[in-house]
Amino acid sequence: MTTAVPAFWSPRIAALEPYVPGEQPRIANLVKLNTNENPYPPSPLAVDAIQQAAADGLERYPDPTSLALREAVARRHGLTVDQVFAGNGSDEVLAHAFFAFFQQAEPLLMPDVSYSFYKVYAQIYGIACELQPVDAGLRVDIEAIAVRARNGCAGIVIANPNAPTGIGLPLSQIERLLAACPDRLVLVDEAYVDFGGESALPLVGKYPNLLVVQTLSKSRSLAGLRVGFACGQQHLIDALVRVKDSFNSYPLDRLATAGAVAALEDEAWFNTTRDKIVDTREGLHLQLEDLGFEVLPSQTNFVFARHPQRDAAELAALLRERAVLVRHFKQPRIAQYLRISIGTREQCSALVQALQAILDAQ
Amino acid sequence: MTTAVPAFWSPRIAALEPYVPGEQPRIANLVKLNTNENPYPPSPLAVDAIQQAAADGLERYPDPTSLALREAVARRHGLTVDQVFAGNGSDEVLAHAFFAFFQQAEPLLMPDVSYSFYKVYAQIYGIACELQPVDAGLRVDIEAIAVRARNGCAGIVIANPNAPTGIGLPLSQIERLLAACPDRLVLVDEAYVDFGGESALPLVGKYPNLLVVQTLSKSRSLAGLRVGFACGQQHLIDALVRVKDSFNSYPLDRLATAGAVAALEDEAWFNTTRDKIVDTREGLHLQLEDLGFEVLPSQTNFVFARHPQRDAAELAALLRERAVLVRHFKQPRIAQYLRISIGTREQCSALVQALQAILDAQ
Repeated sequence: MTTAVPAFWSPRIAALEPYVPGEQPRIANLVKLNTNENPYPPSPLAVDAIQQAAADGLERYPDPTSLALREAVARRHGLTVDQVFAGNGSDEVLAHAFFAFFQQAEPLLMPDVSYSFYKVYAQIYGIACELQPVDAGLRVDIEAIAVRARNGCAGIVIANPNAPTGIGLPLSQIERLLAACPDRLVLVDEAYVDFGGESALPLVGKYPNLLVVQTLSKSRSLAGLRVGFACGQQHLIDALVRVKDSFNSYPLDRLATAGAVAALEDEAWFNTTRDKIVDTREGLHLQLEDLGFEVLPSQTNFVFARHPQRDAAELAALLRERAVLVRHFKQPRIAQYLRISIGTREQCSALVQALQAILDAQ
Repeated sequence: MTTAVPAFWSPRIAALEPYVPGEQPRIANLVKLNTNENPYPPSPLAVDAIQQAAADGLERYPDPTSLALREAVARRHGLTVDQVFAGNGSDEVLAHAFFAFFQQAEPLLMPDVSYSFYKVYAQIYGIACELQPVDAGLRVDIEAIAVRARNGCAGIVIANPNAPTGIGLPLSQIERLLAACPDRLVLVDEAYVDFGGESALPLVGKYPNLLVVQTLSKSRSLAGLRVGFACGQQHLIDALVRVKDSFNSYPLDRLATAGAVAALEDEAWFNTTRDKIVDTREGLHLQLEDLGFEVLPSQTNFVFARHPQRDAAELAALLRERAVLVRHFKQPRIAQYLRISIGTREQCSALVQALQAILDAQ
């Protein structure tokens, strides 16, 4: 079979380098701090809404326009429903946005340290990328990107706060990009914005080139439900709908929509769990510094840290032996960092104790 | 805004002609026979499994490989788990398959009357299509496709039973295609196979060029959950995984997987509801003939029928006025047909009564 098989594949398939999600192992008593999940369950109202939707019948197709969810997003963020697009996790929304906007003759601009899926989307859709180096402190160099954008580009994609560094940019800098790239899309991925970042959503009405993508996976504790959305002016949403309706008319099932709407409406639960995570993050930051780590300032539900004397890959492996999972990226510039998701206080204490023991053992 | 806007769109977006799903209106007491949904609810075990999964926590990502679901499919159909791919409805699975296999230099072959989404997938991925005419009885002309395939093609896509005609092909004819096209994929879409068709799944081990796609939306009453799957030899599944992991790592949420597994395991519920639909279909077929309709032989959960004296679009509109929805396609060759989903006995009686009244009124 080996020689004949490639004939079936479209030529570009063999060249793909797919995204590798953080592992989801089945290890007992695991302290899982590797995929930036929320350690707290979602709003009980979301669980209730899902259970009710399941009982109400699943034999009918869901609403292909996900109207109820888009209305909930619009209400919360002061937008119109025509300014909201919903998808099967922000990953699907991002994929559609790359397809809809970035297949242009010029290259797409993005920081060299960012969400690693961006390069994968670009590759699958044949979009050339030009990576813009972050500075020595791993901060996105907005000025350099803005200068480069003036020479023409397919658009700009940026995570704010950035992943995996956790560093957020002020809104004034996002606005700088929007002004530098008026004829192409600026995609601002705000997966982590609720943990301390500054959202660009208030700029949607002002900038026809702004698309903001958010997810319910992190701050709404719904990673298991796969719901994300994009907000922008209607001509941008229309393009996303065209792609969706040429790919899968019903990307959100009835349960996901019901749970997402209820979660978005439970502000009290959202605020309480978000505040706990932010509080735990600040404590962990200090504890890691006490252990000798250099910790980047985080506006997310994770921290990015390096130990000047210890190899990051080795530390990750030693933590894994102690049933503590963190994420390590074998990539230039960040290979000596660990990305540690903010768990409960107890999980973060277990991490600190494990690190203490590892460092003491040397 | 009107002049500047198109600058943001990728050039190919403006030319897309997206799929238009059957409408999902909010009309009281609607007899909804327009989207081939199952009139019966899903297995109660599926509802229980979903409610349990919701209570078990949604803050963690789902398994990106959907292993539990793939195991359930493999068990049911005598395959290995490496021969199964799962996705967010069979529409997503089909889209990935078009991307993975049909982006070739030569055109893709398909019948001119078939699931209308195929042309949309081809368009979004820039795949040229060559439509092969069905015969005067709207039957797929396998011999003509096989002859044409020998001159080279990107592959073949075929729905069996076909939509919207409902006509099924015997397995021997599918095998004829597989033999005629040994170096390219033959995609057999079996969305409706459980209602009387002959599945090609037993041929998966024999033909490295066979990919069979099925859905839980119809025969498992889970249209609201969005679960589909593809079965083929591992080199085909590997290509689909490459596309999935370059697009959205977690297409199936925790609830969809839990519900799908439970539904696949409840054979008794499946058989009972399937048999009721087949029985109702045969009764409706006769009743429509009594009303003067010509009805194609259906192996699906819908019938395709025309009335020699009445315009189909007009009939559909008159039925809609009586709160009965059926589907009408404004397409060459089938514009005088109505596609009528098989509902409960009561729903089908309501349809027949409405048709009787419309025909009598003339």
